[in-house]
Amino acid sequence: MTGKEERIVYLTDGFVPESQAHISIADAGIVMGATVTEMTRTFRRKPYRLRDHVERLYRSFKYARLGQLEIGREEMVALTEKLIEHNAPLESDGVELGVVHFITPGLFRNYLGGAAGVGKMTPTVCIHSFPLRLNLFRRGLAEGFHAVTPPTRHIPPQCLDPKLKYRSRLHWWIADREAKAVDPAAVTLLLDLEGNITETSGANFMLVRDGVIYSPTTRNILLGVSRKAALEIAAGLGITVVEKDLQLYDAITADEAFVTTTPFCIGAVTRINGLPVGDGTPGPVFEKLLAAWSEEVGVDIRKQVLEFPEEQGEID
Amino acid sequence: MTGKEERIVYLTDGFVPESQAHISIADAGIVMGATVTEMTRTFRRKPYRLRDHVERLYRSFKYARLGQLEIGREEMVALTEKLIEHNAPLESDGVELGVVHFITPGLFRNYLGGAAGVGKMTPTVCIHSFPLRLNLFRRGLAEGFHAVTPPTRHIPPQCLDPKLKYRSRLHWWIADREAKAVDPAAVTLLLDLEGNITETSGANFMLVRDGVIYSPTTRNILLGVSRKAALEIAAGLGITVVEKDLQLYDAITADEAFVTTTPFCIGAVTRINGLPVGDGTPGPVFEKLLAAWSEEVGVDIRKQVLEFPEEQGEID
Amino acid sequence: MTGKEERIVYLTDGFVPESQAHISIADAGIVMGATVTEMTRTFRRKPYRLRDHVERLYRSFKYARLGQLEIGREEMVALTEKLIEHNAPLESDGVELGVVHFITPGLFRNYLGGAAGVGKMTPTVCIHSFPLRLNLFRRGLAEGFHAVTPPTRHIPPQCLDPKLKYRSRLHWWIADREAKAVDPAAVTLLLDLEGNITETSGANFMLVRDGVIYSPTTRNILLGVSRKAALEIAAGLGITVVEKDLQLYDAITADEAFVTTTPFCIGAVTRINGLPVGDGTPGPVFEKLLAAWSEEVGVDIRKQVLEFPEEQGEID
Amino acid sequence: MTGKEERIVYLTDGFVPESQAHISIADAGIVMGATVTEMTRTFRRKPYRLRDHVERLYRSFKYARLGQLEIGREEMVALTEKLIEHNAPLESDGVELGVVHFITPGLFRNYLGGAAGVGKMTPTVCIHSFPLRLNLFRRGLAEGFHAVTPPTRHIPPQCLDPKLKYRSRLHWWIADREAKAVDPAAVTLLLDLEGNITETSGANFMLVRDGVIYSPTTRNILLGVSRKAALEIAAGLGITVVEKDLQLYDAITADEAFVTTTPFCIGAVTRINGLPVGDGTPGPVFEKLLAAWSEEVGVDIRKQVLEFPEEQGEID
Amino acid sequence: MTGKEERIVYLTDGFVPESQAHISIADAGIVMGATVTEMTRTFRRKPYRLRDHVERLYRSFKYARLGQLEIGREEMVALTEKLIEHNAPLESDGVELGVVHFITPGLFRNYLGGAAGVGKMTPTVCIHSFPLRLNLFRRGLAEGFHAVTPPTRHIPPQCLDPKLKYRSRLHWWIADREAKAVDPAAVTLLLDLEGNITETSGANFMLVRDGVIYSPTTRNILLGVSRKAALEIAAGLGITVVEKDLQLYDAITADEAFVTTTPFCIGAVTRINGLPVGDGTPGPVFEKLLAAWSEEVGVDIRKQVLEFPEEQGEID
Amino acid sequence: MTGKEERIVYLTDGFVPESQAHISIADAGIVMGATVTEMTRTFRRKPYRLRDHVERLYRSFKYARLGQLEIGREEMVALTEKLIEHNAPLESDGVELGVVHFITPGLFRNYLGGAAGVGKMTPTVCIHSFPLRLNLFRRGLAEGFHAVTPPTRHIPPQCLDPKLKYRSRLHWWIADREAKAVDPAAVTLLLDLEGNITETSGANFMLVRDGVIYSPTTRNILLGVSRKAALEIAAGLGITVVEKDLQLYDAITADEAFVTTTPFCIGAVTRINGLPVGDGTPGPVFEKLLAAWSEEVGVDIRKQVLEFPEEQGEID
Repeated sequence: MTGKEERIVYLTDGFVPESQAHISIADAGIVMGATVTEMTRTFRRKPYRLRDHVERLYRSFKYARLGQLEIGREEMVALTEKLIEHNAPLESDGVELGVVHFITPGLFRNYLGGAAGVGKMTPTVCIHSFPLRLNLFRRGLAEGFHAVTPPTRHIPPQCLDPKLKYRSRLHWWIADREAKAVDPAAVTLLLDLEGNITETSGANFMLVRDGVIYSPTTRNILLGVSRKAALEIAAGLGITVVEKDLQLYDAITADEAFVTTTPFCIGAVTRINGLPVGDGTPGPVFEKLLAAWSEEVGVDIRKQVLEFPEEQGEID
Repeated sequence: MTGKEERIVYLTDGFVPESQAHISIADAGIVMGATVTEMTRTFRRKPYRLRDHVERLYRSFKYARLGQLEIGREEMVALTEKLIEHNAPLESDGVELGVVHFITPGLFRNYLGGAAGVGKMTPTVCIHSFPLRLNLFRRGLAEGFHAVTPPTRHIPPQCLDPKLKYRSRLHWWIADREAKAVDPAAVTLLLDLEGNITETSGANFMLVRDGVIYSPTTRNILLGVSRKAALEIAAGLGITVVEKDLQLYDAITADEAFVTTTPFCIGAVTRINGLPVGDGTPGPVFEKLLAAWSEEVGVDIRKQVLEFPEEQGEID
Repeated sequence: MTGKEERIVYLTDGFVPESQAHISIADAGIVMGATVTEMTRTFRRKPYRLRDHVERLYRSFKYARLGQLEIGREEMVALTEKLIEHNAPLESDGVELGVVHFITPGLFRNYLGGAAGVGKMTPTVCIHSFPLRLNLFRRGLAEGFHAVTPPTRHIPPQCLDPKLKYRSRLHWWIADREAKAVDPAAVTLLLDLEGNITETSGANFMLVRDGVIYSPTTRNILLGVSRKAALEIAAGLGITVVEKDLQLYDAITADEAFVTTTPFCIGAVTRINGLPVGDGTPGPVFEKLLAAWSEEVGVDIRKQVLEFPEEQGEID
Repeated sequence: MTGKEERIVYLTDGFVPESQAHISIADAGIVMGATVTEMTRTFRRKPYRLRDHVERLYRSFKYARLGQLEIGREEMVALTEKLIEHNAPLESDGVELGVVHFITPGLFRNYLGGAAGVGKMTPTVCIHSFPLRLNLFRRGLAEGFHAVTPPTRHIPPQCLDPKLKYRSRLHWWIADREAKAVDPAAVTLLLDLEGNITETSGANFMLVRDGVIYSPTTRNILLGVSRKAALEIAAGLGITVVEKDLQLYDAITADEAFVTTTPFCIGAVTRINGLPVGDGTPGPVFEKLLAAWSEEVGVDIRKQVLEFPEEQGEID
Repeated sequence: MTGKEERIVYLTDGFVPESQAHISIADAGIVMGATVTEMTRTFRRKPYRLRDHVERLYRSFKYARLGQLEIGREEMVALTEKLIEHNAPLESDGVELGVVHFITPGLFRNYLGGAAGVGKMTPTVCIHSFPLRLNLFRRGLAEGFHAVTPPTRHIPPQCLDPKLKYRSRLHWWIADREAKAVDPAAVTLLLDLEGNITETSGANFMLVRDGVIYSPTTRNILLGVSRKAALEIAAGLGITVVEKDLQLYDAITADEAFVTTTPFCIGAVTRINGLPVGDGTPGPVFEKLLAAWSEEVGVDIRKQVLEFPEEQGEID
Repeated sequence: MTGKEERIVYLTDGFVPESQAHISIADAGIVMGATVTEMTRTFRRKPYRLRDHVERLYRSFKYARLGQLEIGREEMVALTEKLIEHNAPLESDGVELGVVHFITPGLFRNYLGGAAGVGKMTPTVCIHSFPLRLNLFRRGLAEGFHAVTPPTRHIPPQCLDPKLKYRSRLHWWIADREAKAVDPAAVTLLLDLEGNITETSGANFMLVRDGVIYSPTTRNILLGVSRKAALEIAAGLGITVVEKDLQLYDAITADEAFVTTTPFCIGAVTRINGLPVGDGTPGPVFEKLLAAWSEEVGVDIRKQVLEFPEEQGEID
């Protein structure tokens, strides 16, 4: 196989074939989970709101004080586009790309011996892509997800602010296991320390009552790029959006609920902790947003997800 | 260079030369910081309290629900000893080893294309060693550390329990940057959400008043192997140890303070937030513990640290 | 006395004379306080906003997971109207009715012996009415209530959400005793765990500053039917309403304060913890709301309350 | 049927046949859940630690300020013994009794019309018995219970102190539903607002590590009569008991865990949130306590439970 | 020196020369810090928004229950103007006045012996002025302040509400010392117990993103007179202001940040915890507000500050 | 009047007659409440545990970072003794002295004009004495105090640690007013933010159950000198003392409760929030402590208090 035929990955100093893209066991990303990240998807193989993702990546990097970055925002966008240009043709027809950025502070030299143990840390920068398995999200575009709140609470901002898109997410791993004990297909809806709804482990959450969309406050959620898109689309449709602290009662007695997230933009939530939301099916506001969003991206989002082929073998 | 002349690393399926020990960019350890870990050191090139570290590793693994582990405790000990046996002779004379264990849930297959994208997750298991740079800890064995409390608070146990030895530690990275803004040589002493003293980003913290050792409660600290050793040594010396919630006032007005941690066992803390602890020099209880500890391990711990050669080049 | 001459009560399976309407000592309502409830009043013997109350009852029932309910919303409304129709003529002239709904999960069969101890729980459903003793509320329509904050705090939503109208209110009983130690005529104004104003033990609380009405957020208050009515009436009068976290300082330095509640719609609060609110008399915004509300219900609310006859005997 | 052949119930003014023991819909116990309570069991039809239960009942009554009680402690004990004397012979051979006490502030007279609406509240006092269905607890004496922590948190003492044995327990009802969504046979283990382990909805919880029993602090648990018995028995066996804040990590990595409660004294907890405690079977400390307890009460507690006949029909 | 040539101070019973204006060591202001206060400045030697300050002083006094005040609002204004009239001519040309009000409950008579030890407390009322050292604030009008968050948290409103302008500020003294350990020129930006931004020890804090001004909520900040002025000026300029809970992430990733306070109205904040805000220089919204404010007060605020002469000698 | 006939006060630079001991309106003690303090009493005109008080004063001063102190501990003791020697003879026969120390950071020079406005801050140090009005404490030595918990909560240690003896106590002033609304003779018992009992506004609080003394933890109370004395005396009497988090339930259902404080050493608490503690009279443990304490100090403490003459005139 030639490099042309293999996906490429950008790794700190330049592009390498994916099979050579590894992370050192001394990297702060693996040693401390000290990593900021982004995930962008393509529509028709063009990156969607890439600039928003790159801007947030730099905000996260700054806030987390991960070091000095050689690459500027413009170059990051150009490198990303170059990677997509190379990798997209390697995927099957109709397959969209997930494009990942992540940055760590670099190597902990005290884990290395000899000459390698000396010198300053310089950030590890990585861009890579993968074929989006849209089939994993069918539930959200069909009958709707079941959201389950685990006993584990979200990390509060004075410990680690969720507005940072970071990868120290062991608490999400554990929370997911707890939620899946209720329903293996559950999405995990985390409460904060005061019992307010925050976000799922992967998406922003909103609900609808009397035609108005309610979002948790920005106190302990990611300022999602898809969330922002949803709010813009809602504004375009003349739908009021109110940001306030929401509790499970609000969600369970709402008319509708949904999540927004990069891979599939928007998915209905039709059950929470075993109780139906509204009549237990995706609601009209969700449908309006989905339709307008499909229009914005030039792709029928639901169709694309529902028609994505099932995979062979067991997926964990 | 032959394998004999290169350090080896245990990586999931067996030993590999260190230069081939890499982590996939799709590993949950890098993608989510979903990693449990241990760090054991050698004294005279024999691992110290290795079994305690391995036991805790399995407790962390269980609690974090990282999957099914093929390797049992006994085998883990044996593999570790084998690795030390191979790697120790490769280090310079008199150099001790740090031995790291870490386990992640394995690969997130949705980040991989093609056939690799199918199948269950199986844990990534890694054991590796490195030469302990004891010179980094001189301050703790000489004039004593300066502990600084940053504005960032420690993550509470209902979000992610610090009794788990985990690697989702971006909050520690940030807290360290905040503390080093006060003193570049500071050790970072984290408070919990109620303002109680927890631990430093790397060690357990204790204080001494009227000959009694006070430790924070086990609510939000690591149950350190060195902490346990210190408590045993204190018991052997007839020193009372009391576990209770401690606040900065207790530490700042204490007679002595110290930290316990794997790389250098025990280090004095002689300043906190710019104020001297006691008379600002290492105190008698610290000295007694250090002496007894040196005896237990058959190494003069202070001498070993203070005589360790300075390195060339800049260390970050 | 014939059934015609005695009040009737709806109790799970049908109407019974009030004298036969009892609750089993094994009912979950008495054993666990596991009860959701509503209180509707009549104006001119027609139920006021009955549908709002019934809708909330079903939301509470759903959230509390009290079981499967045979009766639908429409039937619940019809049963209620039938009860009023029967009971209203039995009260003295000019007396309005309080109409209570409550539902429990039914009998805890393990408290019963023999055959009764076997079988599933089926909800206990009760509707009953009583003559509204409007004289109890004179203070609120005349010189204004004295609100007192007890040391007991309101239960937070992650323990039991006050948006649920439930009957596990022992904490209110105790809080009332504490407040009445300051002033036997006090209404009890509860703070939440963060010191925000929530509600009284029986009414929603609002304040007025510079012509704007401020309400606590919906985080830890009942979404009162009278509160909603007040907000609609305020909107009709062109009065701005702002929802935000309020503290005692806001209330004590406000221009006006008032409560809204089913039995008397709205009552002035003119003292808080011994300090006058504004000039210590009911204010102009309160008066406007009271006038508009009286118009909406076709009854002079203040007059009806103030002219209600005093009762004989001691009331506790 | 003669009174002799029907169970009797003590209800405020005297004994009545069980079939006539009802609670008014205006009773504060049903209207506000303003009820303090006790549950005592018999061993060989003699009440076990009845005086401890009665003492706590009076402490709860005092703290909750439910009114003035005519009956003194001695009389309460005597009434209880008289009730057992009458009711015990009515149960099948070998069946033990659960004896319930509860007290409420009495009738809310504003819910009553006419003359009944006037007068002071006087407490409702009830004592009743039922045959203990020991078969419901088999799991705890055989393979051990599965404890599950729901997202709902326990009510903190500054809202309503769990040291009070009260009946405003709707939050427990909801928490039980959440836990049973994980495992229909789960016992519900509640965390407090800081994530500490409190108690189950019905029992005290303790764990064992290295031969030492650890109990949550008395901050937010019931001071259980069975807990006290367990601590006394442990003392008698020379087992150390430590009271401290415990988190899920402590429980999940413990050697053993168990609950103590009136109906069956002590039951093993062998799984928590799906993870085995120790080796997943009842442990040696549990067995020692159970044996000593059986000796104290003169009944083989496990045998009595395991041999209790299964019931016919569905139990919910 | 004649009285004419010395500043006067109003002290409880009348004006006295400044050299005779002392506080008793038994005054509740010194014994308990039980003091409410205000600071007004002049522009061109006329007091700015004096009435707003006096109104707040009376609100603070009322809330703090400091006693009975003989002097009414009108008289307080008149006394203040009289004091300015007398004291202003005594300052150098071009120097503006800071005018301080403070009130305490008066003398703790138990600290006094003999006849003085008997009688009721009567409030100590003080008005005094001083020449504003505008040079101290240059940084805020030039390159911008560096705001640093200390580990100490602001006192929450259920302990002592910051909406009260009070003088029990030892926590600010300590927090200032902590912040100055990072940067001796730092302004101290306090977080609340939940990690929200509150205010600096002396000013309100706001930030700007996408042309919108964001202010912390009024939950735990002073309702600053300058803050109110800023909001009015922003409204006049058509700038939207949003009040919401803000965290450090919001501030560090904002386009601009600034503080508002009596001595210099508004100052840019261009660094927070060592990180630049926006491009690290005062931003356009700040400049617009400064210009409009200068217009409102008829003084070029920046020029007045920057041209104020440096002082001789060391200032602490 | 000669100096001999007037009390003297130590004020920063030396002794002055009491009539000349004033605090500047620019002193940080009055401007910010930035003051640490002590209160020592005499027994038979000899200071009691003076060294303990002076040691704590220096700990408070250090923690609060009030500056550089010229006077050392020994000199402080000597100055205090000298002051007592001078002042004691000036009081009536049999009158004991309260001796107060307080230290502030000194003058805020920006509040001063001209030359005084330049220079570093130097601490204000004050020692003064007053005749102890023991009659104010009769209740505690006779029928016992009534402790009342106000809605205001104590300031938590991460804002301002109560282990510091400081004077920023406006929250205590307000809390006292709230408690006195329940009972004008109440002592104010503050809860912390989690609802634990802390201390009264002036004394440490303890309770007794089954012969064991329980004290709140040192988390948020003053480490009282009298508390320490009480613990020593209890130890001498063979009474066990347990330190743990206590809630109102513990206090209200205790056998006894009492406070310890400098002016009268120990006082019974026989009512809490209107409910009797134990039988509502001072209990046997209190009596034992009082007797032993009287012996230690060589004075019958109760007699001294109860026989102290009532004062003429109104005391506030």
